[in-house]
Amino acid sequence: MWAALLPVGRDAWTGGYHRFAWTPPELDCRAWFTDEARRRGLRIEHDPNGNLFAWWDAGSGPAVLTGSHLDSVPGGGAFDGPLGVVSALAAIDRLRAAGFTPRRPIGVAVFAEEEGARFGVACLGSRLLTGAIDPSRARGLRDGDGRTFGEVIAEHGLDPAAIGPDEGLLGRIGCFVELHVEQGRALREPVGVASAIIPHGRWRLDFTGEGNHAGTTLLADRRDPMLPFAHTVLAARRSAAGNDSVATVGKVTVVPGGVNAIPSSVTAWLDARGPTDDAVRRTVEEIAEAARRAAAEHGVTVDLAEESYTEIVGFDHALRDRLALVVGGQARSAEPAPVLPTGAGHDAGVLSARVPTAMLFVRNPTGVSHAPAEHAETGDCLAGVTALAAVLKDLTGG
Amino acid sequence: MWAALLPVGRDAWTGGYHRFAWTPPELDCRAWFTDEARRRGLRIEHDPNGNLFAWWDAGSGPAVLTGSHLDSVPGGGAFDGPLGVVSALAAIDRLRAAGFTPRRPIGVAVFAEEEGARFGVACLGSRLLTGAIDPSRARGLRDGDGRTFGEVIAEHGLDPAAIGPDEGLLGRIGCFVELHVEQGRALREPVGVASAIIPHGRWRLDFTGEGNHAGTTLLADRRDPMLPFAHTVLAARRSAAGNDSVATVGKVTVVPGGVNAIPSSVTAWLDARGPTDDAVRRTVEEIAEAARRAAAEHGVTVDLAEESYTEIVGFDHALRDRLALVVGGQARSAEPAPVLPTGAGHDAGVLSARVPTAMLFVRNPTGVSHAPAEHAETGDCLAGVTALAAVLKDLTGG
Repeated sequence: MWAALLPVGRDAWTGGYHRFAWTPPELDCRAWFTDEARRRGLRIEHDPNGNLFAWWDAGSGPAVLTGSHLDSVPGGGAFDGPLGVVSALAAIDRLRAAGFTPRRPIGVAVFAEEEGARFGVACLGSRLLTGAIDPSRARGLRDGDGRTFGEVIAEHGLDPAAIGPDEGLLGRIGCFVELHVEQGRALREPVGVASAIIPHGRWRLDFTGEGNHAGTTLLADRRDPMLPFAHTVLAARRSAAGNDSVATVGKVTVVPGGVNAIPSSVTAWLDARGPTDDAVRRTVEEIAEAARRAAAEHGVTVDLAEESYTEIVGFDHALRDRLALVVGGQARSAEPAPVLPTGAGHDAGVLSARVPTAMLFVRNPTGVSHAPAEHAETGDCLAGVTALAAVLKDLTGG
Repeated sequence: MWAALLPVGRDAWTGGYHRFAWTPPELDCRAWFTDEARRRGLRIEHDPNGNLFAWWDAGSGPAVLTGSHLDSVPGGGAFDGPLGVVSALAAIDRLRAAGFTPRRPIGVAVFAEEEGARFGVACLGSRLLTGAIDPSRARGLRDGDGRTFGEVIAEHGLDPAAIGPDEGLLGRIGCFVELHVEQGRALREPVGVASAIIPHGRWRLDFTGEGNHAGTTLLADRRDPMLPFAHTVLAARRSAAGNDSVATVGKVTVVPGGVNAIPSSVTAWLDARGPTDDAVRRTVEEIAEAARRAAAEHGVTVDLAEESYTEIVGFDHALRDRLALVVGGQARSAEPAPVLPTGAGHDAGVLSARVPTAMLFVRNPTGVSHAPAEHAETGDCLAGVTALAAVLKDLTGG
């Protein structure tokens, strides 16, 4: 299965993946999924929001849902998303090979636009399903070519008027377990269990100074916004370290952006995440204070705007502890599997508002993610399949 | 005259000028110039390089050339360039109104593509005239639409094969005096005389780290090129101040440039200028050293490339001193006019390699230049015309 997916949407030069929702590479991934599901006799269900489900219609009662997503960030890696889908199908193969018959349905989900790489809102499919985003806002989201989400899904046979929460489907789901490659280096064993998605947010800083000639303007006469911006980048690292958090400046625009022109303005985006809401709030306030101080020193003004903020998402405690015992039981040590938080957002975080939810992580030796070098060892991936099969058996065997 | 030029190529919203060589606004400026010249009975000469000359064919012997340029940077001001051309025509009007007849020809030059805003090389017209740029390199320079200089001038009736040094024309020029708005705040009197164009250069810094996920990558695991870049911006200011120089980072590109992605690389451009070659070299070496130190601290590599460097251009000493006395004699104080260097490049700097050259500066109260707020007071502009008329009279009356 893995070999068939590997070349889809891969840039031959960089090795990075470009699988954006409803573009040809992502449609190829969807076709691959429905083929694999049909080959296993699983029933395909399209929900109104562009999410795909493959059902093993066994037993009765609330289903156990697993799966992940198949879309990617620009230049992303092979594992983020597809590993959870491939592992779900492989876990079903394992259970069947062992002659296991579940007492409840098992579903494999493929959520749409998880990365938000095309329409700008991450986890768009799961947000629509659970009612976490207003359907009319979703319909109007535009891609880089100016086409709306509504227009694009209509072209692919969906009814834009029908998108939104699907209570019937949600009511059939007893719990959701997403398997995903870990995206840091925090996991030292092959498989772990998620405790929470740590709080994270995005802020925009606008530094406004005075554009001028780079050759003729005395240092004392300058109001150069690049200087307080640089102070702010360094303050972000310091404050994050002091609050056990992370802070990143990954995007900046400079106006006018000429080599021989003192900028008139610099806009920077800050991404900050930490173990608690307090830690993140404190980090951002310290950075803002440093930005204001440096701006004042250089005759520059600075405005801070919060573009998004997501509070901590704690996964279901009972489910988490049960998974840690089951996964640990499969491992040589027979100790509970390690439980760890993650700094990345996931469909599981969105689903957790409506159904008991848990996540399994597969070790990432380098911690690289959202980049072509993203990697997990084959042995660890197989341990992930073993763990997921054990979890599905445990949750549907009783 | 000034009122007719003011609206040409001006953005109604920002007030900034967009007069790029051989675009409609710049062609309108050229048409305005030839009209004004014809109205005065001056003879128009087109040289093979796109430069324009209006000749007062009086007397005999080597001519005194004045003038400047009519093109602008993107979003530039009204004075940089046009002030020198308008003042030249106004000075001729003054001399004629006073009944003066020169003993040598007086020429008014309009040099092409002084700002390099279209084809990337500043002072392209004067460089071609004096042989400071290889004609085949010039022919191949491309604008933002990918069209070559050769193609563009051919469309406007010039022969691309004929561009290059014009020894016949150079041989007819005895000296060149360019009047220009000052671009800093160094000039405290209405009119001053240039001593030199200070050395200046442009360097590119490539910081290469490792792209990764902004949420899941521990601070200790990061190789974030944004951090040594920020250190370098601050070091540039410190080193410039310590060496009586200026240093500016006005352009930066970040890859991949995502809000939630640690950058894999940051490229920054450094503009540095100072009173002596030594001061500039020392400034840049200190900045490079700080960049290397900060890069090593963050597991990032940095490469420094010199994109251009121009050594100090000293104007003709005899001409400079003569102008200072003549201009000072016009002022109330009757002291020699102030003599000062400039941090900006000019056609006069290029011409000075072939003919005795000098510059007059008109005071700039705010020091703003290359921006819509660029300004000179009307009284100072008139003092500039008076000074230039006195200089032309002095240089052609003997």
